[in-house]
Amino acid sequence: MRESDLHSNIFARSADLAAAFPGIVVGPGDDCAVVRTSGGEELLLKVDQVVEGRHFTAQMPVDLIARKAIARAVSDIAAMGGTPRWGMASGVLPAGYPHADELCARLAHWGRVFAAPLVGGDIAAGQAGSSLVLGVSVIGVPHGTRGAVLRSGARVGDEVWVTGKIGGSFVSGRHLTFEPRVREGTRLCDTLGADLHSMMDVSDGLGRDAGRMAAASNVRIVIEGSRMPLHAEAKDITIAAADGEDYELLFCAAAGSKIDAAIATRIGRVVAGSGCGLEIGNGRVMDAGEMGWEH
Amino acid sequence: MRESDLHSNIFARSADLAAAFPGIVVGPGDDCAVVRTSGGEELLLKVDQVVEGRHFTAQMPVDLIARKAIARAVSDIAAMGGTPRWGMASGVLPAGYPHADELCARLAHWGRVFAAPLVGGDIAAGQAGSSLVLGVSVIGVPHGTRGAVLRSGARVGDEVWVTGKIGGSFVSGRHLTFEPRVREGTRLCDTLGADLHSMMDVSDGLGRDAGRMAAASNVRIVIEGSRMPLHAEAKDITIAAADGEDYELLFCAAAGSKIDAAIATRIGRVVAGSGCGLEIGNGRVMDAGEMGWEH
Repeated sequence: MRESDLHSNIFARSADLAAAFPGIVVGPGDDCAVVRTSGGEELLLKVDQVVEGRHFTAQMPVDLIARKAIARAVSDIAAMGGTPRWGMASGVLPAGYPHADELCARLAHWGRVFAAPLVGGDIAAGQAGSSLVLGVSVIGVPHGTRGAVLRSGARVGDEVWVTGKIGGSFVSGRHLTFEPRVREGTRLCDTLGADLHSMMDVSDGLGRDAGRMAAASNVRIVIEGSRMPLHAEAKDITIAAADGEDYELLFCAAAGSKIDAAIATRIGRVVAGSGCGLEIGNGRVMDAGEMGWEH
Repeated sequence: MRESDLHSNIFARSADLAAAFPGIVVGPGDDCAVVRTSGGEELLLKVDQVVEGRHFTAQMPVDLIARKAIARAVSDIAAMGGTPRWGMASGVLPAGYPHADELCARLAHWGRVFAAPLVGGDIAAGQAGSSLVLGVSVIGVPHGTRGAVLRSGARVGDEVWVTGKIGGSFVSGRHLTFEPRVREGTRLCDTLGADLHSMMDVSDGLGRDAGRMAAASNVRIVIEGSRMPLHAEAKDITIAAADGEDYELLFCAAAGSKIDAAIATRIGRVVAGSGCGLEIGNGRVMDAGEMGWEH
């Protein structure tokens, strides 16, 4: 079974969760779940894993592996416009793994740095030869006035924006050292309010993730390749759109919204239809929804 | 490095967390962390893992593996007298694992049954030959009036109690089918209130866990072996005290507290000193704090 089919089944099985459990506002399928306490406060919940051989290699510094594990989950909180509050970490270490204590120390360090201090954890020994796997749960809060920004709010006529630059995350090492866009997400909520219609972080490639946002919002997203802000290492727009692990924020805002150029770049528009098209010049449009990583 | 040393280092590094982050009430080291939202509500946070070869074998039914993964984390919420609200699950599956969809379905099922509906998750493929590992995070709430019941509240003069029966968890299969004691924990908070001084669940053996409660409370716990309520499969009190995975509630209450015999049995007393002693008859006392599993 393909991972995407596995996920489809998971989402289908949880489709009635919000109806069955009144404390669930948004169940599986967005960057975070949104739940509501009995006192009426909303929380953002996320769990994410990094796996040896997929997100890092055993040769990479333990400090950067720990950093990435925390930063990825925090990036999903940023993707909703939220702020992390607490974290928990779990790990499966290959039998005899020599860096267990250092790994725990660096996870705790980065939890503090990214404002998701680790209040719990569980370390287990796997069999010899097992992959090193770290799981991080983060509990956050949505923006105080805007509330949680979902993937599903993009509307026809919106403009499509992205923070920072795209591409070359692996070759540059940025997939290990990126800064989760918590401040930027908060700032966008502050300044745009209800005009910030949808948001997510770019983890599996700009094209694929924009396709997911389009599907969640029941619209089509068109990315104008010539507008894409590329990192120096990015070879061209099609490769950059597929690269993945940028951890920038992709968002849709009401047309004409004023957004600080230091925060984000306008890269496209929302139209009627489905999928994500990438305009690569001379009137050619690629189907970008299938570009990138199926994670 | 021994797991207990690894844990000691983790706890030492997090000793200042509650001071550094005002939203943290109880950091790592108890059954759950206790955090406080900006609106003043308290939450219980827990992550726990089950690992193939340690908590289950690959031959066991997928349904029971999923059940145990959820129930263990829920049991830690019960151990604080709390109620689960939401869950998240993560899994590392050996490459080519054929039961991925069934496993996800059963995790979702048991999340609903145990009132920790899964609002998020992450499944990753490990290398071929990797152990199957499931991680479950549960977010719960403490009892509305008693608040979170910690391990550290036992006082000299208290009586020591345990819910249900002890021993034979593995041979009987109960380590897979136990019922987390959420209702019992709530009932004890309801009826005892502030006279319920300390509580935890028995996962690593009654003796070892009582020793941990004694250490957290800076007291000595004496268990009267003749009072221990044993399951039919339990061979004798010393084996039962070491068996582990009972998932019953061990608690200390003010002397003379009236507790329904259908809920719990008085098994000992709290005295000045340290450690846990198990009285095995004829005036003999075993050091029970080292009995059981170092998990």
